[in-house]
This record gives sequence, structure tokens and C-alpha cells, in this order.
Amino acid sequence: MADLSVKKYIYSFGGGRAEGTGAQKNLLGGKGANLAEMAGHPDLKLPVPPGFTLTTELCTYYYDNLHSYPDSLQEELSAALQKLETLAGKRLGDSANPLLLSIRSGARKSMPGMMDTVLNIGLNDETVAGLARVTNNPRFAWDAYRRLIMMFADVVMEKAKGLPPAAGKGVRRLMEEQLTALKASKNLISDTELSVEDLQQLVHTFKDIIQTHFGQVFPQDPHTQLWEGISAVFMSWNGKRAKEYRRIEQIPEHWGTAVNVQTMVFGNLDDNSATGVAFTRNPGNGEDAFYGEYLINAQGEDVVAGIRTPAPLNEYSKNDQSRHLPSLENTMPELYRELHTYRDRLERHFRDMQDIEFTIEAGTLYMLQCRVGKRNGAAAIRMAMDMFDSGWIDADTALLRVAPQQLVELLLPMLDPEAEKSASLVGKGLPAGPGGAVGKIVFCSEDALEWAKKGEPVILVREDTSPEDVDGMHVAQGILTSKGGMTSHAALVARGWGRCCIVGCNTLDIDEERKTLKANGKVWKEGDIISMNGSKGLVFDGAVPLVRSSVKDNQHYHQLMRMTDQTRTLQVRANAETPGDARQAREFGAEGIGLFRTEHMFYGEGSEIPLHLMRQMILSEGHAAKQEALDTLFGFVKKDIKDTLQVMDGLPVTIRLLDPPLHEFVPHDEEKLAALAKELGISLQLLRKRVLALHENNPMLGHRGVRLGISYPEITQMQLRAIFEASAELLREGLRPHPEIMVPVTCTPAELEHQQAILEQVYAAVLQESGLDAIPYHYGTMIETPRAALQAGEMARVAEFFSFGTNDLTQMTFGFSRDDIGGFLPTYLEKGILSQDPFQTLDQRGVGELILLAASRARAKRPDIMLGICGEHGGDPDSVGFCHRAGLDYVSCSPFRIPIARLAAAHAAIASRKTAE
Amino acid sequence: MADLSVKKYIYSFGGGRAEGTGAQKNLLGGKGANLAEMAGHPDLKLPVPPGFTLTTELCTYYYDNLHSYPDSLQEELSAALQKLETLAGKRLGDSANPLLLSIRSGARKSMPGMMDTVLNIGLNDETVAGLARVTNNPRFAWDAYRRLIMMFADVVMEKAKGLPPAAGKGVRRLMEEQLTALKASKNLISDTELSVEDLQQLVHTFKDIIQTHFGQVFPQDPHTQLWEGISAVFMSWNGKRAKEYRRIEQIPEHWGTAVNVQTMVFGNLDDNSATGVAFTRNPGNGEDAFYGEYLINAQGEDVVAGIRTPAPLNEYSKNDQSRHLPSLENTMPELYRELHTYRDRLERHFRDMQDIEFTIEAGTLYMLQCRVGKRNGAAAIRMAMDMFDSGWIDADTALLRVAPQQLVELLLPMLDPEAEKSASLVGKGLPAGPGGAVGKIVFCSEDALEWAKKGEPVILVREDTSPEDVDGMHVAQGILTSKGGMTSHAALVARGWGRCCIVGCNTLDIDEERKTLKANGKVWKEGDIISMNGSKGLVFDGAVPLVRSSVKDNQHYHQLMRMTDQTRTLQVRANAETPGDARQAREFGAEGIGLFRTEHMFYGEGSEIPLHLMRQMILSEGHAAKQEALDTLFGFVKKDIKDTLQVMDGLPVTIRLLDPPLHEFVPHDEEKLAALAKELGISLQLLRKRVLALHENNPMLGHRGVRLGISYPEITQMQLRAIFEASAELLREGLRPHPEIMVPVTCTPAELEHQQAILEQVYAAVLQESGLDAIPYHYGTMIETPRAALQAGEMARVAEFFSFGTNDLTQMTFGFSRDDIGGFLPTYLEKGILSQDPFQTLDQRGVGELILLAASRARAKRPDIMLGICGEHGGDPDSVGFCHRAGLDYVSCSPFRIPIARLAAAHAAIASRKTAE
Repeated sequence: MADLSVKKYIYSFGGGRAEGTGAQKNLLGGKGANLAEMAGHPDLKLPVPPGFTLTTELCTYYYDNLHSYPDSLQEELSAALQKLETLAGKRLGDSANPLLLSIRSGARKSMPGMMDTVLNIGLNDETVAGLARVTNNPRFAWDAYRRLIMMFADVVMEKAKGLPPAAGKGVRRLMEEQLTALKASKNLISDTELSVEDLQQLVHTFKDIIQTHFGQVFPQDPHTQLWEGISAVFMSWNGKRAKEYRRIEQIPEHWGTAVNVQTMVFGNLDDNSATGVAFTRNPGNGEDAFYGEYLINAQGEDVVAGIRTPAPLNEYSKNDQSRHLPSLENTMPELYRELHTYRDRLERHFRDMQDIEFTIEAGTLYMLQCRVGKRNGAAAIRMAMDMFDSGWIDADTALLRVAPQQLVELLLPMLDPEAEKSASLVGKGLPAGPGGAVGKIVFCSEDALEWAKKGEPVILVREDTSPEDVDGMHVAQGILTSKGGMTSHAALVARGWGRCCIVGCNTLDIDEERKTLKANGKVWKEGDIISMNGSKGLVFDGAVPLVRSSVKDNQHYHQLMRMTDQTRTLQVRANAETPGDARQAREFGAEGIGLFRTEHMFYGEGSEIPLHLMRQMILSEGHAAKQEALDTLFGFVKKDIKDTLQVMDGLPVTIRLLDPPLHEFVPHDEEKLAALAKELGISLQLLRKRVLALHENNPMLGHRGVRLGISYPEITQMQLRAIFEASAELLREGLRPHPEIMVPVTCTPAELEHQQAILEQVYAAVLQESGLDAIPYHYGTMIETPRAALQAGEMARVAEFFSFGTNDLTQMTFGFSRDDIGGFLPTYLEKGILSQDPFQTLDQRGVGELILLAASRARAKRPDIMLGICGEHGGDPDSVGFCHRAGLDYVSCSPFRIPIARLAAAHAAIASRKTAE
Repeated sequence: MADLSVKKYIYSFGGGRAEGTGAQKNLLGGKGANLAEMAGHPDLKLPVPPGFTLTTELCTYYYDNLHSYPDSLQEELSAALQKLETLAGKRLGDSANPLLLSIRSGARKSMPGMMDTVLNIGLNDETVAGLARVTNNPRFAWDAYRRLIMMFADVVMEKAKGLPPAAGKGVRRLMEEQLTALKASKNLISDTELSVEDLQQLVHTFKDIIQTHFGQVFPQDPHTQLWEGISAVFMSWNGKRAKEYRRIEQIPEHWGTAVNVQTMVFGNLDDNSATGVAFTRNPGNGEDAFYGEYLINAQGEDVVAGIRTPAPLNEYSKNDQSRHLPSLENTMPELYRELHTYRDRLERHFRDMQDIEFTIEAGTLYMLQCRVGKRNGAAAIRMAMDMFDSGWIDADTALLRVAPQQLVELLLPMLDPEAEKSASLVGKGLPAGPGGAVGKIVFCSEDALEWAKKGEPVILVREDTSPEDVDGMHVAQGILTSKGGMTSHAALVARGWGRCCIVGCNTLDIDEERKTLKANGKVWKEGDIISMNGSKGLVFDGAVPLVRSSVKDNQHYHQLMRMTDQTRTLQVRANAETPGDARQAREFGAEGIGLFRTEHMFYGEGSEIPLHLMRQMILSEGHAAKQEALDTLFGFVKKDIKDTLQVMDGLPVTIRLLDPPLHEFVPHDEEKLAALAKELGISLQLLRKRVLALHENNPMLGHRGVRLGISYPEITQMQLRAIFEASAELLREGLRPHPEIMVPVTCTPAELEHQQAILEQVYAAVLQESGLDAIPYHYGTMIETPRAALQAGEMARVAEFFSFGTNDLTQMTFGFSRDDIGGFLPTYLEKGILSQDPFQTLDQRGVGELILLAASRARAKRPDIMLGICGEHGGDPDSVGFCHRAGLDYVSCSPFRIPIARLAAAHAAIASRKTAE
């Protein structure tokens, strides 16, 4: 009878049974839970090599107890091992028929390649001979043994024990150099050409290296190998790569990883063996078709590592790189059919696309892993809609299947198709991450980080990527590799992030040392510009213009968006500043404009005349000259507002009164100043003096927003007249303008009252002039100073709406200047002092509390007050979720992010509903 | 029987009775209430000319009802007038023996000269003859008549009715020009030399002016004069001067003013008539002696206006200007004795010093007004202590008798007495406002404002000041007039503000038009520098060095301070940065240092070497050079801290870790940069590049405070080692150092934890090196970002104390850059959008709420957390009051303001006690 007081740390699986289930992901990790599910669930009962899972709780115990295990573990492990040996029909260390084990990590959430693995545990100088005899393949046995020693030396002896890298470069590299040297000396190209004697010599050399560099011997006892291997995998949870990945993916430290010990099966035993990975549906476009790759006579790592170009699973899976290779469907049709039935069983069981790994050992199929498969945005949408249409999943589940961030890919910029036609092709690879990217070539992660820090867009170019590269990949516009396939490290990681990525572009000759890229007889150096079409896998020379992607023809997208709108309660508006923006915003589903910055007309195309008038107003001497400039400016402002109100006919347009400090409008370099002085007809010296007088030490906290409107009531007056006259004209033309007049940077209700007095005067005047009975409008304020948030109750007595300006509110709440955070925020994120950039994702604790407080105070005074946000956060899914929970009426974001906000709002509504239930 | 449903708007007094009492100041205004008290209280029953008061409620009614009165008023006024006529024995409009009335304003709080007055109501073409007959003085009667017409035209017809100023300059000036022209044509100097015919001609001319400019006639009906006069005085509550004064003095708009209608008595009837003002004790030093001035044959206005130099009331009241003039005690000994008994009665009744006005009409003494007399700080203290010692008042009352702000005067800088000896004297006047002042001469209020805006210290030099000058007086360092006495407008206003002021400096020849000041044959122009000793009335040429005043020998001050300390519960610490500051702070009664800025050593005297090392650390290449600079700097930092801890032996010293952004330490002008490049041995170009890299757009929100400590942990480490080593050495020397280590500009507890880890390492190392068991210290943070305040609960898990940095907290809560508010804050104050500069007086609604919230959250997590503030607000009485109510443990302010904070803390404690009762 089991001692109930002892915690169970090990869960066995195999032989059609399992102690765990797929639901126990937190305890068994994703991989372990799914192995249990595959092995034990009555619907599945797939041929899983027997094994057992050491739980995440054991990992936590291990870290909490100075890297030691509970006393009970020894016995529990023995029992589990015995069960496994019985199922496998082999024993660990049996020199006649040795059992070989794999030890793999498996966290709650997949962290591909970020932790360590040890394979072929159980081999030693004796069992290697037994394996050679049993398999009748001494080359295979000795190759497995030299692989074990290499991995063990690297993962267990060097990394886990924290020894200094052998010879400064690490034991793995040292051993690989020996392998390469041996091949070179014998003039061999492939590892498979090595003879048994070669491999035996390598084993000998490897053991010498261990002795020399670590002063230890490679442990011959298989049980020692097993225990130390398990500890090493637990240790890799806190390895550098894993920690970096967790920081980026925001996976908590305390989750820990499970460890899976499993009978080895060999895809590299002979030519009746193979290994492969597959997706139950196409992860690139979502089509309902089995899609995968395999390699004959190879280990699983060989496929994922992307070193050899894998063959297609079936006709459907063929691509330009693999078209000439024989498919599994053709070479092993029976096994393919068996695999296909497992694929169907898995899909029906999980009702979601699965990513599976399989191995064929001497003609027998084993399922090694299954998990929810990563997919790009387009695929996620299509799968969700298809499964919803077929009744497999309900609407909520379908919506939740698409991460709002995944829509970014669909809405991503892409290379201009017309410009592409005449662009010079550098090479063609696999389209691993969609969208377009243009940037300067860098050849390593460190350079990518350094260049990106300087604001340079970079393309990270590598032979292939490894987990060491994640930081550089994260900051790059695009990732380009010459090796690897659609399931290679680079492809998996890029897909997860929606990053533009092309892999396996094997016509490229990349020299990472010399930092050159050669193709078609041409050479590109670090810093040279290339362009990528990640949706087609095309690389071009130089900068090809980027255009916005169109989702117009994607019916699955439109279906998703319709479902989104049926589910969400939060409205979504756009931050738009031109009639063009406004039009695009409506197309993206905007329900109004939440932020129309009146100052946009002074920047960019067509801004010359208005900007000149603005400067004239600011820098001229005397009231008359200033007023004259303002009067002329009026026409431009009115036209601009009228055009936008017209496009948004019937929907609200929140027009913010002038916000930036006046010095933002004046030039500061000598040449432009001289020209301006001439235009204004004043001396350069005088102009300089006036410009200098506008200088501020902290313009963010300076003379801006409503402070301008109070110092220069004539500016407010001019803008209000433009709004009301434009509205009046549209009303007479039969349209339904809905201007919402928004006062920026307020901190006390008296400011609102001051501007309101001007408004009432102008309104009355325009009403009389127009002969209309009324011009509909609302009057409100941005809440972007902490004081305005605190005073929300008082502000709401005057304001009919609030729009939280979360950019400035974040700046003032933290005391962070957005322009200057480069000096410290990266350090803050790196050291974990902040978990997120508060300008990307709303700080719910600080800024969020002010919003909640302001919302409740405002509603107490004016229950029907309209509340929204218009900072950059309006398009960030987490922040949208917060806004929903905070009970805001709308979020406003850039037109391009509207679909993301709509989906995020739907997710938030579903979550609230579920919480309420 | 009175109709009880009708509100009473008029309260009569006179003849030993009064309907109101002195307690009804809110209803009757200060003047009206005191007239009722003087007239009606059994202890007083002073000879007050009979009259009645129209209440402040009537003023409110008048403004709320489009400048109209309740229907009942007509009847009520008739009744009150009848009562008055009976007491006076004269009737309004009686051509045989006409009653003349004065109409004066009287708000709750005295607003000297800010509202309008109409005198001699009741005179017309007929009654003037009657008055001439009754008084047997036609010149007097016609002079009174021409004065009435002039006042009426100005106050009632032009100002109250809002007519455009007659002839662009105003009717009063127009009439005065006529008067001057007439005197010139007749070669007369004084008004009193005008003949009856001259005055009759003036009356005629004045009436013509009214007809010409206003198209109306001067009303002959005395009742019309009365009604219109009352309305005009009510209107003057919202006149420009009154509004300005209210804004500065923070008197609410809605209080309104009362209006007092009173029988005229004439101090200018003959040479047995006189008028005077007096203080029951000396308002300049608090001595228990009757002190006043009077003028024979003059109206009250003549004394207050400061046009003639008044004579002394008695021997005691004589000064250099009045020594040669006969005292009232000598010229009218009986009346003086009568006045003296009234003085005694008033003092005993009110138990406070009174400011009184009296008039002698043809040998009969009338008391026109009494009110609590304004006094300077020294006088306030002495009177409070004397009255406390004599048992008249209790300790609380004594403490409340001194406004904390009044201590400023005692602690004011004064001219260096040694330097004064050799300074060149410009002139000598009356010492109306104590302390010293040095500044540039300006000749009008507008110039004072303009120069002060530019940051120039100014001395406002005027012949005499008028209520129109209050704005300029407010911004000036000192006020200097050539006319007027100790009770002149300038003197009263300056005394109220504790401003350095010299009046009646009659050897000065001031030309306000040409902007010149002549004295001793020398000429000073606008912008020339002069110095003032306001305590002695001396004006010097050029800048005489200022020194701090000493309160060492003032026993009354010390008594007050002792009482303060027995009453208050709030501790007071000092912001001090040098051992010298610390010593002074202890002298002023500091109970510790609440803010020791470690960066002070890089500024000012003796800073060359540390600053150079700092620059070396910031701008050198490579870790080694930086660390070397830091190691050398360590010695300076340690010495500095040790010296200060030594001075403050036994008291806490809050040491703030480095706060300013690094670019504050590097030079920015080319010359200094070149020199620095040479010193550092790098090229100028490279240095420029490094300096540029440190530039920030909004340094206030930039890389500063703990952000530096996190980016450069070695700086934190160095400072902590300096603190602990200094403490360890002092401990071994037998002293009791109490460093409190304060981390600046935090926004999340993780920052505190990060720095704490460094602290613990350093602490352990120093402890071991020193061989001590413990080094007492506390670890805490400034709360100066809104987020830190919101996160106070979490911060308090790490911090043992908080110090609210209200300067930065105000900046971030409002979004106001303190450096840049010049562009808009004056407008905000002027337009009443903010009632106070939030950097002067803590904004209780916004910033205050954050403090309250942080305090309660912090105490919930750590009940014994020490809470204080260390912004500029720590020395502002209102803000100190807030801190007491907020339950903070201490305030910290500049050494000079410690006594102010101590008294303010005592006031707050008394107020809390009274509220609790």
C-alpha cells in the first residue's frame, strides 16, 4: 500500500495506460501531460514509447532545497524505472539488451529549444557492445555512444555544473572540432561515412577531453547517468537562454519545468527508420490538410535543428525545396496511413490543430509528442472559423483561438508587389514568417541589438538560428537563414512573434565570421540594405518600398471580425488625423474617431502654408500681425475638420484642441531660421531671441495643451469657430457631423470652465450666423495629468466625456519621459524591475488605478459620462482587456490596430462573462 | 410690529445703543460690527457718530439679482434714516441744518483703500448754504460740496456705472486739473487758500464737466445721492483694485462687503477740529504704549493718504519726521485724556491691540472706527507674550496671535551692519517694513511686474503708493516712498506682507514720469541699484551685502518658540547640505535633517575637485578610469557625510542618494568643454559626443534618481560605503550617528529592493571591517512620483520611512515643470484658474490626496513607518497645517524657515484640538 503522506512526484505512461492526463499541464508540463493523454486516453491509445514524467513540483522542490530531492524520490524513481523496463522489455545497463532513455524538459508552456536534453542514457563501454549486437549495427551503437558522451559532457558536466567552458570555447565545440578534424583527415563529407573504428576513436578522444578539462571521468553507471541527466535538465530551467525567453514571453520563474524520461526509439537505426514532425493542419494558411516533414535514418533533433532539408510527408507538404524528395506517403505508404489515422484521432480528440513528432524504428511507428501547434495569424483565423463552422467549437472558443496580436501579421506591411517586380532578387527561401521587412544586414544577435538600439532597422542574417539568438531575433525587422525548414528554430520562434522570416534560403553563402553574404556572385556586407517578402520567401537587394497589407479578400478574417463585434461591448475608435486616415479607419471597423489631433496639419505633406502661418502667428510682433496670421490659418483648419467630419458622417469625431508647445512649430537650425527671418521680415537676431524665449527645460511639462488655450484664447476661439462652422455647413448639406471637442492637458476644472466660456460665445455666434436651431456637439477633456484623474469628479461637472491620454498619464505617473527612457528602461526590463514597458502595455497598478478612480468619481457625478482612452495602449490587447474591465466605453487606436482592439475587446468580454459565471 | 418674514438688512447704531454686535463680522463686516460694538457694548459705549450698516447679505442679494434690492429695503432704509436723524438732531436735505452722511465699505476682512467711499452726502445747492450758515464757515461748506461732487462724479457716476473715463483720463483727474489750474492762476499753493468764490466757481465747473462728459446732472436730491452712493460702494466690491487685492489675499468673492452709512463729523471744520489714527500699542515693536498720529483741521482721508506729514499723538509717538510738530497731548490735553481712556477701555475689552480712527469736531471727540491693528512680526510676538504674561489671554490664543509668516520678518535678511557703515546714504525715511532689501529701481507697478518676471530684484520707488500699486508692491523686494507716514497705504500694505518698506523719505526728489530719483545732487535712473534698511529707514546707494538677521536676543521670540514646542506634535527637520547649514538648523530648533542632498558637494565653494572627479567618472572611457574617479570621490563624500552626522549627533540625518541626471554635472559651453577635454585627455569632438549622448528632452522625467543607482550600481555602492564607514568611525568615537538612507525618484518597490541588495552587501562588509555589532540606520524612499504614492503599500514593505518630495510630486501631479511655469502660471493666478502657486502652497486637493492615500496605505502595511515631507512646502504654514492633519511625523524645510514651521505646527495642533472639542 502506498504511503499517502508521501507526495507523488513521478507519473508513468505507456502500454495503453497513463497515471496522468492531458489536463495536468501545470503538474506534468505540456509535453508530459500530452504524452499521458496520447498513451492513456481511451480515444487515443497511441503507440507512445513508455516512460515517466518527473513533475514541475519536483522542479520547485529542487530549487527550493539547494538542488536536492525529497528522500522518497529514490524509491519512486526505482519503481517507475522498473515499470518502464517491464513495458519496454529491456533493462537499463543490461549489457545483453540495454534499455536506452531520453531525458527531456517539458514546461507548462512550450519553450522550444530553450532547455536541455540528454539522449541515449544507458550506454557505456559494455552496453554499447550489447546494443551493437542486438541492432546488428555497430556503427549505429558507437555513433549513439559518442553522441551521449558529447551531450553529457556539454549539458550535464559543463552547463549544469557551471564549469568554465572547456578551453574557453566549451566542450561541445571542442568535441565537434575533433569530429570535423577526423572527417577532414579522412576526406569524408558526412558523419554517416565514419567507420566503427572512427567512432570508437572519437569516443576515446571525447573521454580524454572530459578527463583533461573537467578532471573527471565519463560516468559508466547508467543510473548515475540518469540521475545526473535529470538534474541537468532541471538546472537548464534557469539557464541563460531559458531565462531570456521567459522574460520576453513573460513566463513566471516559479512555474518550473517537468522532466520526461522515456524509452529511446531510433529513427536513425537503419533505412527502415525515420523521424518526422507534422501539423494536423497547415500552420501557414490553416488549410485542413496533413502537413509535415521527415528524414529517413535520422534522429528527431536532425529535423528540428534544420541542418538537413527534410522530405515532404505527402504530396500536399511539398514545397520548392522538398519537391524532388520522396514523400513518406510514397516510401512507406502503410506507416503513412497509420500516422494519418493518428492525425485524425488527435484532431477529433483535441478539436484543435496539433503539432506532432513521430519516429519509425525499423518499420514500427512511435508517437513521441503532440501539442497544440503554433500557427500564423491567417492560419489561426481559418482553423478557428473552419472548426466553428463544422460545429467542433463554439463562438467563444473560436474567438479565443486567435490571439489579437496574431492579426498583426495579416495587417502587416508587405513589400509593394509592383516594386517587387523590378527589384533585384537575392535569393528564395521558405516563407516562415509573413509580411515584409526592409533593413540593414547584421550577422549576429549582438550586432542586431546594438544596431537596433541606435534605431536602425536590421535584418538578422544567419546560417541558422539557435536559442542563443532570441534577443537579436526579437529586435530585428526580419530574420533570414540559409539552412533549416519550416519547423526549424528560426521559423518556430518567428511565427510565435509574427516576425517576418525566411528560412532555408540555401543559395545564400553566409560567412558569419567575415560578416558577408554572397549570392549570384555578388557580396553584401554588414549594414547593406536588403528587403524580405516573408509571405513568399523572397529576398531582394536594397530597399523595396513597403505597403500596407490588405485583408479585404480574406473571408475568414471578415467572419471573425463579425463574430468579434457580436461579442464585444467595448467600442473601438481610431486615432486619425486626415480624411484618408479616417476612411481607412472606417474600413477597419472604427466606430468613430477618438483622437483627431488638430496639429497634424502642420506636419508632413501640404503643411508648408499652415506651418508658415503658424510661425507667423507665433513669431510676429504685435497683435495685428498675429491675428492676421490666425485669420488666414482659420480657413485651413476649417477645411481639414470639415473633410474629416464628412468622412465620418454619422459617427463621433473627437477633436483635440491644439496641444504641442509653441516651440515645436519653430525651426531651430540656423539655415531655416535665416530663411524664416527673411520671410517674416525681421532680423535673424530678433528671431533667434523670440525662438529662445519659447525654449523650455521640460517641454512635456511646459506651456502646452489647455495652457496655450488660456494664454492665447484667440487660438481656442479660432479652432472652435472652425469646428462649429464646418459642422453647420455639413448640417445644411444634410450630413450628421458629431464633433466632440476635447481640451488637452487639464489639471483643474477651472481650465475647462475657462475654455467653455469661449466655446459658448463662439457657438452662439455661429448658431446665429448659420440660422440653425442647434449644432450637436459634446465638450470634454483628456485625462492625462494625475491631478485631472484625482479631480475627475469635479472635472465631470463640466466635461461630458473623458478620454484618458495614457501616453502622458504614464509619463507623469511614473515620472518617465518617453523620449528619454532609452537611458534606463532596457536596464529596468533586463533586471526585472519592470516586467513590461509601460508605454507598450498599460501599467494597471499605477496608471490603471488612476483610471479606475477617475472613472468611478466621474460616474458618481455624471452617470452617463462617456469614457475612453486614446493613448497608444488602445491597440494593445492586454490594455484593451483592462479598459473593458474598467468599464470604459471605448478605446481609440491607430487605424491599423483597430481589428486587434476589436478582437481583444471580444476576448475581454468573454473573460468577463466566464468570470461572472 | 415688524414683519418677521422680511429679512433684516439694516442694523442701526449710535446714542449708546446698537442693533448689532462685534461678533457679527460676517454679516456687518469688520467695520460695521466694531462700530456696533463700540457704540452699544456696555463696557464701551464710546461716542460713535450715529449711523447704520447695510449687511453683506444685501451685497450678495444685490449681485445675485442683477444689481437690484429687495422690495422691503426702501421702507427699512427710511426707518433707519429716521432713527439716525433723531439721534443726530438733523435731517437729510434740511436746508436749515442739513445732515451730512458718509458711505463707506466694510468687508469681513479689512481691505484698506481697495473699495470706494462717498463723503458729504446730503449737500446740494440749497443745503450748502444752510451748512455755511450753521457752521458759520462758508469756505468749509463749499469745500465740502466740491469734494462731494468730485467723489460722486468719480465713484458713483464714472466707476460704478462703468462709463468710459472722461476725456480718456477719468473725471477725477479732470477735476483735479481744474483745481490745480485755478490755484496756479491765483498763485496759490494750498487748497485751504482758496476763497469761497473760488470754491463756488469750482462747483460750477465740476457740474459742467459732469454735464459735458456724462450727459447727466449732478443729483440734487440727497436721497438719490444716498441710494446711488450705497450702490456705488457695493459695486466697488468688484472693482479692479478690490479683485486684485482679494486674489493676493485669497479673500473669497462671495463674502461681499457691508456698507456703513454714518453721520459725518468734520475734523476740518476749524482749528478746534482734528482727525487722527492710533494704535493702542506700538505696532512696530509691540511696546505697551499708545501710539498715533493726527492732523489739525483735516479729514480722516488726509491722514491715511499720507499726503501731509501727521503730528504725533503724544511724546511717545514722536519720530524724526514729526518731532518738531505739536502733539495732541499738548495741544488738546483734555481730549487726549478722553481718548486715552477709550484706548484703555478698548484694549481691556478686546484683549488685543486696536487700530482706531477718531475725529474731533469743534472740540468734541468722536470714535469713527476700531479694529484689530496690523502689526509686524516682532510686535505681534511681544504683544502676545505680554498679554499672555499678564493673564489676559491663554497660551493657545497667544500662539494664534502670531501668524507663522510674520516670523519671516524677524528672520529676514538685513543689510550687513558693518558694510552699512561705509555705504553711501541716499536718504532716511520711516521704517515701515523691517529687514533689508537690495534691488534695481523701478518707478511704477507695471515696470516692477515686468522686471520681476525677468527675475530681476526690484525696489519700487514712488512718491507715495495707492491701491493701484499693490501688484507691483507684491513682487518688489522693497518699497520706498518720499511721502506718507507709518499709517500710509504703503506702510499698511507692506506691514501686512512683511515686506521691506521705507516711507516718507522726503529728501528724495522722485520724478515718476522721467523715471529719475534725485538726492544729494545725485541722480539715479531706472535699473540703478539701491539698498534699503527697512528696520531703520535708511536708503543706500548700490548693493550693500545682505546678512541673516539674528533673533538670538529676542526673549519674546524665545518664549514663543518654547510655547510652540510645548503645543505642537509635528516634528520639524531641516533641509541642510553642509555642516554649517546643519549647525544653523540646530540653532533654529531642527530635530534632525530631513533632506541632505549628496550632490550639493558638486556645486559652489570647494566643489572643484569633487566636480572634476564626477566629470571624470561620467565622461571617461572604460570601466577602470571610471572606477578610479569614483574611488577618489569616495573620500570627499565620506568626509562630507561624516562632518554632517557629527554636527547632528544624536539626531536623524536623512541622506538622499544621488539624484540629478548626469548631464547636470557636465559643462555645456564651448570654452569649458575645451578645457575639460584637455583635462580628460580626449578630443573635444569625442567629449562633445559624450556630452550630447547625455542630453535629455525632459530631464525632470529622465535618467535620474534611483534610475542612476540602478544603471550605475557602483555609484550607490560608493555612497553607501561612505555612509556606513562614516557612521562606524563616529560610533567608535563615542557619537550617536543616525543616518537614514533615502532612495530618490522611485516608482516601484523593485527599485528599492534592488538598491537594498547593494546596501546589505556594503553594510555587512563595513560591519565586518569595523568590528562593530551594528551600525544603526534606516532605509527608505522619497515619494515623489504619483506611482510611488499609489504603490505606497508595496513600497512600505521595503521602506522604513517615506519622505514626500512635494516639489517633484507637484510637478508630476499637475504636469507642471517648475522651470517653465513662468509661461503660464501668472496667467493662471491672474484669471483665478488656480488660487495659489502649488509650488508655494501644497495643493491639498491633488497632491494632498496622493499624500493622504500613500500615508494610509503605508501605515496599513507598516504601522510604525516614519512619514515626512521635504519639499519647499515644509516651511509654508498652510502646508504644515495639512501635514499635521495628514498625520505625518515631520516636515523638513530650509533652516531659516524652521521657526515658521514650528509655529505653524503649533497652530495646526491647536486647530485640531479645537475641531476635536
